[in-house]
Amino acid sequence: MGLTFSHDTLAQRVLFGSGKAAENLASEVARLGASRIMLIAAEHEAGIAGTVASSINVALHHTEVVMHVPIETANRARAAAVENGIDLIVCVGGGSTTGLAKAVAMTTALPIIAVPTTYAGSEATNVWGLTEASRKNTGIDNNVLPVTVIYDAMLTTSLPVGLSVASGLNGMAHCIDSLWGPRADPINAALAAEGIRALAGGLPAIVEDPEGLPGREQALYGAYLSAVSFASAGSGMHHKICHVLGGTYDLPHAQTHATVLPYVLAFNAPAAPQAEARIASAFGADTAVGGLNALRGTLEAPVALKDYGFRLEDVPEAVSIILPAIPANNPRPATTENLTELLTAAYHGTTPGH
Amino acid sequence: MGLTFSHDTLAQRVLFGSGKAAENLASEVARLGASRIMLIAAEHEAGIAGTVASSINVALHHTEVVMHVPIETANRARAAAVENGIDLIVCVGGGSTTGLAKAVAMTTALPIIAVPTTYAGSEATNVWGLTEASRKNTGIDNNVLPVTVIYDAMLTTSLPVGLSVASGLNGMAHCIDSLWGPRADPINAALAAEGIRALAGGLPAIVEDPEGLPGREQALYGAYLSAVSFASAGSGMHHKICHVLGGTYDLPHAQTHATVLPYVLAFNAPAAPQAEARIASAFGADTAVGGLNALRGTLEAPVALKDYGFRLEDVPEAVSIILPAIPANNPRPATTENLTELLTAAYHGTTPGH
Repeated sequence: MGLTFSHDTLAQRVLFGSGKAAENLASEVARLGASRIMLIAAEHEAGIAGTVASSINVALHHTEVVMHVPIETANRARAAAVENGIDLIVCVGGGSTTGLAKAVAMTTALPIIAVPTTYAGSEATNVWGLTEASRKNTGIDNNVLPVTVIYDAMLTTSLPVGLSVASGLNGMAHCIDSLWGPRADPINAALAAEGIRALAGGLPAIVEDPEGLPGREQALYGAYLSAVSFASAGSGMHHKICHVLGGTYDLPHAQTHATVLPYVLAFNAPAAPQAEARIASAFGADTAVGGLNALRGTLEAPVALKDYGFRLEDVPEAVSIILPAIPANNPRPATTENLTELLTAAYHGTTPGH
Repeated sequence: MGLTFSHDTLAQRVLFGSGKAAENLASEVARLGASRIMLIAAEHEAGIAGTVASSINVALHHTEVVMHVPIETANRARAAAVENGIDLIVCVGGGSTTGLAKAVAMTTALPIIAVPTTYAGSEATNVWGLTEASRKNTGIDNNVLPVTVIYDAMLTTSLPVGLSVASGLNGMAHCIDSLWGPRADPINAALAAEGIRALAGGLPAIVEDPEGLPGREQALYGAYLSAVSFASAGSGMHHKICHVLGGTYDLPHAQTHATVLPYVLAFNAPAAPQAEARIASAFGADTAVGGLNALRGTLEAPVALKDYGFRLEDVPEAVSIILPAIPANNPRPATTENLTELLTAAYHGTTPGH
């Protein structure tokens, strides 16, 4: 059937440099010729935001940042942007902050410069999310893709080690699931492999030296690549499983991802030799599963779903909800039997791949 | 000094599929809502162009395609586009055809859909070239980057094997030189490594089965990646050397690139361990030089500059012209001595890296 794919590369400038956020932001603002800047940053990040924005003029400081971007919050920020004649949004913060900037860009088409302080990755995608009547809606709009992302690993050194690892493994899940997502293609795969390489190097370095920059830089760079490749490839089997475990059984996000990932990898790897080889090579390991297991050992990552509230008697129902959601292009066809086996192993924490 | 870089990702859609060019072109034309299309294709490619454009309405067929895009040729095409109220350019052909489409886009800002029939790679860059008074000028303009590239390996099966190999090795040189070009960064490196992987697989397959599609697909895909990474990273040591050898001593382009590349790789590899490891891994070889040498053996690639008109007595002068052009960030500093050694070895065809 040959090499057949469709790939949309999105335009974005990335400026990467530790300790350079303020300088890079000032030069980007000058390049874009903006004069009425809205700075979005949560109050608890006012200190970081002030440092980052120390060399630019801010017309409007917006600090009302709420998780999952409720529509009311978005509408207040949108109105504020219009009333103040804003011509550029600068957001400094994690996923919710970037999310609010995107919500404003949706209706105003204002350009965004994003300065992430976590590994959320939202800054590298054209995906928006808004919560209305406690329901989260998401969509795609190129207007919400930041024109420039400024990465500065010094802004992430205050992220606790545990959260960094959880967030980094979430990025790892994005990379690995990109290899068989519904829009998987070799370009996504190459970027995902680079993300795996960076995260596999960065996360152990953070554990060893939480204040050190090299690990933080690699993790931040890996998180960026994980977002680019995942947004392009779409949710694969891993994310379909975790979505159900989180949504129906209320399992914690990061721990669920970290636990389930190696089982999905072990499940698909034998049926996806090219992906397997790419992942193994990115880990510098003999096999993909071996590389991931070794990394998880270093990080003392979560190992069993039973530790997070999942029950053995939930497995049959979970399987019945997950099964129809598995993408048709998944390398190995999922069945009630093999999904039951996968979830049971993840429940117990049996060594993945054994 | 940490991870510091600036990377501009350019927006472009790539549609890849053998035998799908006509279908993909029709759907892209519909998506873009174009109604007055200028089809640029040289007369000798009228057959291919006719097949590719069989499902779209063409308002203007433009067949005056001249190598290196003389300004007079460009101006006639530009005038024709304006006079005919064109709203989309479709170009079908090699580098000169794409180059003419770019020349028209420069002054008209018309969008381009490029359908390449060679491994030139110009379709994936924002670089234009025009020849005026026998001098070639080049520049950068995002308007000349095709909005969509349609790759169809069936259009390349008529490329003779020798030309395919030469052109593919030129792509390989773009990939390898991207790893230490003046704007080298890890994103370029990841794309370049993927290009090396694709070309290393594709070129031997073309030699073995010139009519077969799998090798052609990999080579075409690799050529695309080589252009993306090289346009972003800029000319490194290899291209600076080949530019002088071609410009001052009139050595043939493809053969010069194919001969010089392994010497530059052997020169830089010990001083660029990360690049070395990436290249080796992309070749699936123990060392980068070993991987490239093995590939060249399979392809019966050119081995010595003496076979193409270069003379041993030219070495000192060549060194003196090349030396000041080597980028400051080259992994291993070039000197009169080590450049003389490199060119002398390339003159004789001594096994690179020995």
